[in-house]
Amino acid sequence: MHTVIKKALGHKPVLTMLAGCLLGAAASAALAAPANDNATLSQIRDSAMRDNWAYERLADLTDLVGPRLSGSPGAAAAVEQVAEAMRKLGAKVTLQPVKVPHWVRGAESGELVDYAGRPAGITQRVVLTALGGSGATPATGLTAPVLVVHSFDELQAHAAEARGRIVLFDVPFDQQMADRGMAGPAYGHGANYRVNGPRKAAELGAVAALVRSVGGADYRIAHTGATILDDKARIPAAAVTTEDALLMTRLAARGALKMHLTLTPQTLPDADSFNVIADLPGSDKADEVVIVSGHLDSWDLATGANDDGAGVAGAMGVLATLKKLNLQPRRTIRVIAWMNEENGTRGGKAYFAASKDQLEKQVAGIESDSGSGRPFGVLSSVAPKVEPLFEPLMAALEPIGAGAFTRRDVLGAADLHPLEQAGMPVFEPHVDTHSYFHYHHTPADTLDKVNPDDLRRHVAVMSALSWFLANMEQPIGRTLKP
Amino acid sequence: MHTVIKKALGHKPVLTMLAGCLLGAAASAALAAPANDNATLSQIRDSAMRDNWAYERLADLTDLVGPRLSGSPGAAAAVEQVAEAMRKLGAKVTLQPVKVPHWVRGAESGELVDYAGRPAGITQRVVLTALGGSGATPATGLTAPVLVVHSFDELQAHAAEARGRIVLFDVPFDQQMADRGMAGPAYGHGANYRVNGPRKAAELGAVAALVRSVGGADYRIAHTGATILDDKARIPAAAVTTEDALLMTRLAARGALKMHLTLTPQTLPDADSFNVIADLPGSDKADEVVIVSGHLDSWDLATGANDDGAGVAGAMGVLATLKKLNLQPRRTIRVIAWMNEENGTRGGKAYFAASKDQLEKQVAGIESDSGSGRPFGVLSSVAPKVEPLFEPLMAALEPIGAGAFTRRDVLGAADLHPLEQAGMPVFEPHVDTHSYFHYHHTPADTLDKVNPDDLRRHVAVMSALSWFLANMEQPIGRTLKP
Ligand SMILES: [Zn+2]
Ligand SMILES: [Zn+2]
Repeated sequence: MHTVIKKALGHKPVLTMLAGCLLGAAASAALAAPANDNATLSQIRDSAMRDNWAYERLADLTDLVGPRLSGSPGAAAAVEQVAEAMRKLGAKVTLQPVKVPHWVRGAESGELVDYAGRPAGITQRVVLTALGGSGATPATGLTAPVLVVHSFDELQAHAAEARGRIVLFDVPFDQQMADRGMAGPAYGHGANYRVNGPRKAAELGAVAALVRSVGGADYRIAHTGATILDDKARIPAAAVTTEDALLMTRLAARGALKMHLTLTPQTLPDADSFNVIADLPGSDKADEVVIVSGHLDSWDLATGANDDGAGVAGAMGVLATLKKLNLQPRRTIRVIAWMNEENGTRGGKAYFAASKDQLEKQVAGIESDSGSGRPFGVLSSVAPKVEPLFEPLMAALEPIGAGAFTRRDVLGAADLHPLEQAGMPVFEPHVDTHSYFHYHHTPADTLDKVNPDDLRRHVAVMSALSWFLANMEQPIGRTLKP
Repeated sequence: MHTVIKKALGHKPVLTMLAGCLLGAAASAALAAPANDNATLSQIRDSAMRDNWAYERLADLTDLVGPRLSGSPGAAAAVEQVAEAMRKLGAKVTLQPVKVPHWVRGAESGELVDYAGRPAGITQRVVLTALGGSGATPATGLTAPVLVVHSFDELQAHAAEARGRIVLFDVPFDQQMADRGMAGPAYGHGANYRVNGPRKAAELGAVAALVRSVGGADYRIAHTGATILDDKARIPAAAVTTEDALLMTRLAARGALKMHLTLTPQTLPDADSFNVIADLPGSDKADEVVIVSGHLDSWDLATGANDDGAGVAGAMGVLATLKKLNLQPRRTIRVIAWMNEENGTRGGKAYFAASKDQLEKQVAGIESDSGSGRPFGVLSSVAPKVEPLFEPLMAALEPIGAGAFTRRDVLGAADLHPLEQAGMPVFEPHVDTHSYFHYHHTPADTLDKVNPDDLRRHVAVMSALSWFLANMEQPIGRTLKP
């Protein structure tokens, strides 16, 4: 109907209050197919809300494959399973080669073998788990005095005492901050010690490093995660549970504390793996790509249902939703199940390297990697002036309580980060994360933590968002701060 | 002042509305010392509320000794530590010999090695822990098909299929019931399967038995506990986590499920151990005994802070409180730290056997074994007609929110149960247990779960209650249903 208007507007900015309805209708007419009108967006939303396909794929991934650490048989099986599921939907699936780190957990145990007030014959067990990238102790373990610190400043103040010791960073997770909706910053504070603490301890001559688990629950479970160590000083590094960090701090306050630590992980040569990529080809703007993604690898302790099975299932669900409705977007919607987000982000880097010559064609990217908590909107790093263009989308998501659009200068989604830094706006479902870090990187990140209804909402948000981005008439623009 | 009244009344029932004040004052005069008047009870309550002595003892017990399973070095060290702490208070401490079962945990692991839809090379790890009393698999484990049932009825319906299989009892814990204040019955339902399930499976020829952990949290932690097996069919028996029970049930619904199970615990000859008994001698009724107690043994996975370090610390705190105030009761207050509540109740049986000739002198018993949740009153199995006599006590506990007196026909406190069955009324602090079974018998039952303020309230309730029972003028009576 409004073809003339559409053509006249071209790529220039329009009065944003009018843009949604006018241009949605315009695109619709141009393609002889519906586009960003409310009817189509609502149809996508409602179809996703009725469909358990994504949850069933998540069950397959977690129950049949299980843990999927980069380089593991599980990661390889996951690549096959996810590729096959998307082939069955009729998508063109590509496996993009990625060389990944290959770290394999070994034996792990800790024992407090001496402390002030210890009765003869008594030792205290410490529950811990090696951090990804940890070096190994001798097979029989090592015994050393423990230095407990609560900050990098405190480590520096006791720098001379670190040599020959096991350094414990007893830094609490700020669950109150997470409860106030700031799970990300709360996690970032703790993860800084996990990622960088062991290396700093190694630089001071520590024989091993321990960090207090980065998570807000109190069930004596250890939270693994990546740490970054120099190859020349790859000391053993592990996360102890909150309970054990507290115990060690209390015992250290009573006097000298000595620990026996055994960690025998192996760092093997890089392994061959893949990003799984499935395209839903666009019509008149097929060379422009909207990425919708999650990461396929997980830590090895659990089946990674929330980190990030839910993200992968959500992205696959976009394909399933649009295929079921037989909707073709204008731009190509590209589902990507990334490999190696957890300990290297090699998948994201490989895709970026392969896209280097056509970065401007990567017009927008969605990555879901904050779990399957109920979504209440969309987070985005679009430029501020573009924000009002999303009103029609948010209006269509409002009926499922997901109508809030929140802009940030940088989202920092791991796999999309190189693209975001190159100017591609990034999006993610804005979900309830208050309990996400209770389970994150622990053995308890399992399918039962995913509410099927929340996952359907997740798919609804990602599907409507993907469709909207793939059919926007106006330029989506680039990020404000590349 | 009212000595005449006291003598005239003797042991006959009196008008209960008058009893508290009249007889409290009477006893006071008779002994030239305060007794059950509000001033004394309030003094006891307030002194306990200001004192961290019990919490410090709990920290010593859990941090320095740690786990205390019967027969272990920890149990022996705990006997010494607790006896010494009470000797330091000036109490006469006796170690009462108890022969205890001696079961020692070994290696334990589970792996789902085949199931419908399993990708080549993939197996799924099962988080589990042996039940106390479990038999052992061969050192290299055993492999068998799994039969999942959800009730004893379902087991009977599939009785012929149990032979040669690993039977999993997937029976959920009713956390909603626990949240409604009925943690005990919720626990009892699940514990029935843990205690009796493996034996019933063994009777049908099962090669091993698994139970879903009896607890309401979802952090993939296994809850151990006792199971009762015949020596002739001591099959391997373990608790799997809630998550793993759900996984196994889902996989069994897809088709045949096969598991590799390794459990190598040892059942050793009975070991020598002790109840720790400390008397605060009474004055004119010293031959009558009021027991105040908790159990000193714990499971081996954790430091048993709530089960039952808090009970032992609470009972010891009664002694500390009364010693500090230099108060002598009329009846003897006997602090007992029981040995072997968890897997045999041999301590309770040994005490009962030793008291057999003077059961009527065991006038009342307190056992705290429901954790250190905030107390809101007292539970008791006194006869109904005696209940009103406790009004002065409850009035004194009301200012700390612990003024509710709740009578039941039977409390069933494990160590005191033989005495209760012989007619001795039993008491316990009535505490908030909504989260007690989240941690119960798991590695997470640690000191940080005990709120020092709640423990002070605990000591206040137990101290005032012990004092009140030891100084009651009227007969405390016997239980209604021995
Ligand atoms: Zn993730
Ligand atoms: Zn107990």
